[in-house]
Amino acid sequence: MKGILYGIGVGPGDPELLTCKAVRILQEVDCVAVPVAERDKESAAHRIAGKYIRSGCPVIELEFPMTRDQDLLEEAWRQGCETIKELLDQGRSVAFLTLGDAMLYSTYIYLNQFLGRAGCRVQTIPGITSFSAAAAAGGIPLAFGDDKMAVLPGSAVAELNNGNLDHFDTVVIFKVARQYQKLIASLEKAGRLDNSVLVMSCGHPEEQVVTDLRSMVGQDLSYFSLIISRKEPV
Amino acid sequence: MKGILYGIGVGPGDPELLTCKAVRILQEVDCVAVPVAERDKESAAHRIAGKYIRSGCPVIELEFPMTRDQDLLEEAWRQGCETIKELLDQGRSVAFLTLGDAMLYSTYIYLNQFLGRAGCRVQTIPGITSFSAAAAAGGIPLAFGDDKMAVLPGSAVAELNNGNLDHFDTVVIFKVARQYQKLIASLEKAGRLDNSVLVMSCGHPEEQVVTDLRSMVGQDLSYFSLIISRKEPV
Repeated sequence: MKGILYGIGVGPGDPELLTCKAVRILQEVDCVAVPVAERDKESAAHRIAGKYIRSGCPVIELEFPMTRDQDLLEEAWRQGCETIKELLDQGRSVAFLTLGDAMLYSTYIYLNQFLGRAGCRVQTIPGITSFSAAAAAGGIPLAFGDDKMAVLPGSAVAELNNGNLDHFDTVVIFKVARQYQKLIASLEKAGRLDNSVLVMSCGHPEEQVVTDLRSMVGQDLSYFSLIISRKEPV
Repeated sequence: MKGILYGIGVGPGDPELLTCKAVRILQEVDCVAVPVAERDKESAAHRIAGKYIRSGCPVIELEFPMTRDQDLLEEAWRQGCETIKELLDQGRSVAFLTLGDAMLYSTYIYLNQFLGRAGCRVQTIPGITSFSAAAAAGGIPLAFGDDKMAVLPGSAVAELNNGNLDHFDTVVIFKVARQYQKLIASLEKAGRLDNSVLVMSCGHPEEQVVTDLRSMVGQDLSYFSLIISRKEPV
């Protein structure tokens, strides 16, 4: 009997935001696989979920480099899939940990698609998205009534300028650090800046909710920074 | 010392998708408040989280009628807020249960905003969104790489036709039952129908994942039906 791969979303940072299902599966599996950006570098997902892993359970690091080089990425995914597939073929169950929700901006998606196509048994356990946790922390609604919400990465800043987002009551922007100054200018132009919050390191001890987004221009923002922007004041 | 209101997202249906934090708070609070559509009608959120409520804990039903009549709704929210505020003023802590995520299409948002403005202590505990659970069940990614995602209710079907969503890699449509036939026609016109899944009663025992969306035209769909539609095949 072949093993099952469980793709587990561990939420954005607070270990208490793991689901009961995630915790149960972590107690049951034969091994855990965690993504790392470099060998021997700490995995954020591992740090968050570590206390739920049963003692003695092997933890395998899979290296997924932080790069935009598609060839390098695909080679890393292929290797990660092979490592997991070997374990599954030996009949071992594997939990792969991933930040936030498993199906939203995660490396797990590639494992899910590739191993699913290779005939492996795969089950995905959803996790708390960072925007749900950020909305909770910032006291800002994501959507109510007939609202429409757009979710996009900071690299899509042009979308704010070309009017494509004017119809959206809420815009959630991930990975804002690199494009921050441009994003602030675009949100201001779109008349949204005063109805926006910036949440940094959501769910981590150093979490910060900022409502004066201009004050952060020129500052170092953590990779885990996101903006929730409403069209109208709540 | 006044009490705290905890707004708890209980996820879409599976009791195991409550977070550890939600479970801990449910064990600790003085009372639990649940939304019901009519007096003595079962609350879905209560059914999902019921087993985590400590025995003997009072459960208060707050009536929020299923209506589009804004006056009736506002009166119901006002009454619900008053009931909760009285408890908080007595120093009691209250957990208000809400389906899915607390800040996404929930009645809790009104309580959060109103009671927050009234100076009450309010803390929001995020929950698993139904689209995260549906993406997991359907094996369909919400977003990867630089993807953009739009989230909207079925009533916004016109957005699919006017080209506003052409730039979005993923479109998530909530509450599809009433507009189902129109939505299918619009998704077809937008070339998205064959890359879509319909998930009904996500996380409930009767959950169903449908990839041939045409086959459901004319069928009775549950209120908890949603569509995840990708622009391109995964």
